[in-house]
Amino acid sequence: MSHQQFSSGLLENAVHEFSKLPGIGRKTALRLALHLLKQPDNEVETFGNALINLRKHIVYCRVCHNISDTEICNICSNPSRDNETVCVVENINDVMSIENTQQFRGLYHVLGGIISPMDGVGPSDLEIDSLLKRVQNNGIKEVILALSTTMEGDTTNFYIFRKLAPFNIKVTTIARGISIGDELEYADEVTLGRSILNRVEFTNSFK
Amino acid sequence: MSHQQFSSGLLENAVHEFSKLPGIGRKTALRLALHLLKQPDNEVETFGNALINLRKHIVYCRVCHNISDTEICNICSNPSRDNETVCVVENINDVMSIENTQQFRGLYHVLGGIISPMDGVGPSDLEIDSLLKRVQNNGIKEVILALSTTMEGDTTNFYIFRKLAPFNIKVTTIARGISIGDELEYADEVTLGRSILNRVEFTNSFK
Repeated sequence: MSHQQFSSGLLENAVHEFSKLPGIGRKTALRLALHLLKQPDNEVETFGNALINLRKHIVYCRVCHNISDTEICNICSNPSRDNETVCVVENINDVMSIENTQQFRGLYHVLGGIISPMDGVGPSDLEIDSLLKRVQNNGIKEVILALSTTMEGDTTNFYIFRKLAPFNIKVTTIARGISIGDELEYADEVTLGRSILNRVEFTNSFK
Repeated sequence: MSHQQFSSGLLENAVHEFSKLPGIGRKTALRLALHLLKQPDNEVETFGNALINLRKHIVYCRVCHNISDTEICNICSNPSRDNETVCVVENINDVMSIENTQQFRGLYHVLGGIISPMDGVGPSDLEIDSLLKRVQNNGIKEVILALSTTMEGDTTNFYIFRKLAPFNIKVTTIARGISIGDELEYADEVTLGRSILNRVEFTNSFK
């Protein structure tokens, strides 16, 4: 399909844009563009604007750095959540995965990545200082480390554990029900939910 | 994933809109939305506007009814194309499929469907009258019927063949290299290209 010319530059544009998305080839992009052509004018406008507005107006929660529409996200501002327990995750996908298990009623802290010297990501590139400030000021009693069970995840776990040592709080990790080497994001809901319930106290010898 | 709540209504919106697309489930929609979040602001705007503009500004060629940016499409207005040969197809996807074989240098005529009594589509719902007018006025010497090899395709072939009988022109069908019952759109390029080259004269007993 690579050399295909369309009789419309507008179609060519739309197909080109669609095919920039991950996992969308040129043939699928064409199918999607032709689908949109058959939809009512205003519905396509709603679609396009939903994407533009998402990118333009999204904010990240000032407390937990989760994706949000407001300065403080609706998890952090929910009075029925347990604000003494904070679950530390790598990214916003992980928040959604854990919320989806409906097993956790505490708050989150999104690091924005994990320590990975190979990729040039050090502790200062992550939201670790803000986590320590939260622990210091906000009456947090337990920090759950819910990072991927990879070497980078373990390194980050250990780094944060050491940083949290001076505070008199419980530090736990999610149970290793998730097979070693797997990304948290792709774990099934049951396994992930159980691993939160069966979380264990973090120690130097937790391996 | 069906009951998943997002911490952002903007994200929820974008995911909802993406998942209306054919073949895009909620999990893929989320992946696409999060991908857009990581792109530069202006690129997402370009993407959204490409889709909106496609739907809003697209026109269909006054001559062949193919998708176009202008009143007459760039195939019909191309002086190097053979304007004595017209290939009749069901829809714009078929034009693209045939163009993609690079075996055909004539013009097209997009019917906008095929005769299908089951779906309530009769000859008057299709661009058949405009085809007859083209044949009458524009010095066309050959009409190639390139419809799907289904019962509806055969019915439409036969109907058009009878309507074209009064004119002194050649009427051909694409070679039946395509297996009976297959949609034209999904044929491979080689088969489709060859079936155009090996087109045969349309007769009452062409079956």
